[in-house]
Amino acid sequence: MSLLVIGSLALDTIETPFGKAERTLGGSATFISTSASYFTNSVRLVGIVGYDFPQEEIDFLKSKSIDISGLEISKTKKTFHWHGKYNFDLNTRESITTELNAFESFDPLISEKFKGSEFVCLGNLHPGLQKKVLKQISNPKLIMCDTMNFWIDGAYNDLVETLKLVNLLVINDSEARELSKEFNLVSAAKKIMQFGPKIIIIKKGEHGALLFMNDMIFTAPAYPLEKVFDPTGAGDTFAGGLMGWLSKTGDLSERNLKLAVIYGSAMASLAVEKFSLDGIRNLSHSQIMNRFGEFKKLTHFDEVSLI
Amino acid sequence: MSLLVIGSLALDTIETPFGKAERTLGGSATFISTSASYFTNSVRLVGIVGYDFPQEEIDFLKSKSIDISGLEISKTKKTFHWHGKYNFDLNTRESITTELNAFESFDPLISEKFKGSEFVCLGNLHPGLQKKVLKQISNPKLIMCDTMNFWIDGAYNDLVETLKLVNLLVINDSEARELSKEFNLVSAAKKIMQFGPKIIIIKKGEHGALLFMNDMIFTAPAYPLEKVFDPTGAGDTFAGGLMGWLSKTGDLSERNLKLAVIYGSAMASLAVEKFSLDGIRNLSHSQIMNRFGEFKKLTHFDEVSLI
Repeated sequence: MSLLVIGSLALDTIETPFGKAERTLGGSATFISTSASYFTNSVRLVGIVGYDFPQEEIDFLKSKSIDISGLEISKTKKTFHWHGKYNFDLNTRESITTELNAFESFDPLISEKFKGSEFVCLGNLHPGLQKKVLKQISNPKLIMCDTMNFWIDGAYNDLVETLKLVNLLVINDSEARELSKEFNLVSAAKKIMQFGPKIIIIKKGEHGALLFMNDMIFTAPAYPLEKVFDPTGAGDTFAGGLMGWLSKTGDLSERNLKLAVIYGSAMASLAVEKFSLDGIRNLSHSQIMNRFGEFKKLTHFDEVSLI
Repeated sequence: MSLLVIGSLALDTIETPFGKAERTLGGSATFISTSASYFTNSVRLVGIVGYDFPQEEIDFLKSKSIDISGLEISKTKKTFHWHGKYNFDLNTRESITTELNAFESFDPLISEKFKGSEFVCLGNLHPGLQKKVLKQISNPKLIMCDTMNFWIDGAYNDLVETLKLVNLLVINDSEARELSKEFNLVSAAKKIMQFGPKIIIIKKGEHGALLFMNDMIFTAPAYPLEKVFDPTGAGDTFAGGLMGWLSKTGDLSERNLKLAVIYGSAMASLAVEKFSLDGIRNLSHSQIMNRFGEFKKLTHFDEVSLI
């Protein structure tokens, strides 16, 4: 089934303790679409770039069978540029430069073709804009949304309105605590469900992710890597794997959501092993399935008889 | 097979945001032995208490089929007393009072019967004392050891000497980082293996535990509880379940170590639901197996064909 992805495309400069990459492909929509493209050939991208966006990166997105007919190219402005520097532990970072450029005027009109998309993945955007997009979609099977502390702080009411329309919220632990005003993550998830989304995924970085759906809780570890090269885009890559798998299968059962979380986790673990998008630019299906298999070894244990 | 447990017995006063318990049964050896007693009837306790230690608590330990012939009762000193207060998040606590009392002169002589124990569980003690105990044991099948930041800081050389004799180290994440001087936990475990222990378990509190053995890594989540009542003894209860299962089965395969970690995690999750030892005082086997089953639901996912 088709997957509509709305979010940012950027040229990022990234510094980690292991090196620096200059004006490399970034942005939520980029990571989500690329990650999802390994699961379905029906990814539809909506975003905006500037006149400086490299043609080879447009060709790259096309090579992943991503429909880029919703990609606007500004003739007067440059592409969104972010320069970030990660600290030694890779868990914290500072933004050195954030130039919105063309992205500042992002206000997408969804084409007739895209309006009928069955799965919708809203990257981290102003919740008002997310809602405006949703109002244009006919009758989707599932709407997933990401957000961040910045909007919880600065656009709380808009966010609450948007969440009423969302089925699946993917959020990190500190954001879940801030949004729900609950410290305990189980309590936080229950409270956020009351805002609208009936499926909540809380990402905990190196500690993995928690899936809440009905009364079911599922835990996925993060893949224990000795070297994380660059965490940029890990959350979006997770969302792309998750939504790619759901779009491919069209199955919203608890059983299949668990698999989607594992595919998301596997894709994210592959992404952080290299700089920016490089970890997921050219994966084979066997690389993905091998990593999926590693997650099974990491988490599964045998049945035992009564002690 | 027999399990020798050496550690502290205490009367703790505990304050959490949910209430206060005064002079309630505590100490590493208490939690370890009680937790292990659900798996094997051959738990052997070595420790020291004061003249004020309640007879009913001695009767309780006996009721769990724990061999307390190694329990020394001081006629002149009181029992080790700790008064701790947990902060709102339950992840941090302050020690209000620490009175070592009888425990200050703890210098155990292991009886002839106990010297032949196959499994040895060293609670958190001065590493010099841990080593002194180990020198008295004949030919154990497995030695497990716990430690803490206090000894890594203050008795580093003694700890390194003790670790040479230890097969399995159970340690929390901050301790693993401090001991190894590695931030990444995979790197930390590899480095600690060079000190001696070939099996490392890193506890991450609410984020679960990591098992490292040969090249294998296994992850266990913490059970996602909405209300944690009192985290006191969670780590020792984990160690008790772990070592209880290993002693019961005598099986040191990777497959069985995974099960031991899950049993440890299940026991710890039951412990923190009530104050001090109350969560594991009177469990039925079906309560433990139900919680074990919950861990399977939390972590297992289906096989899938190639994407």
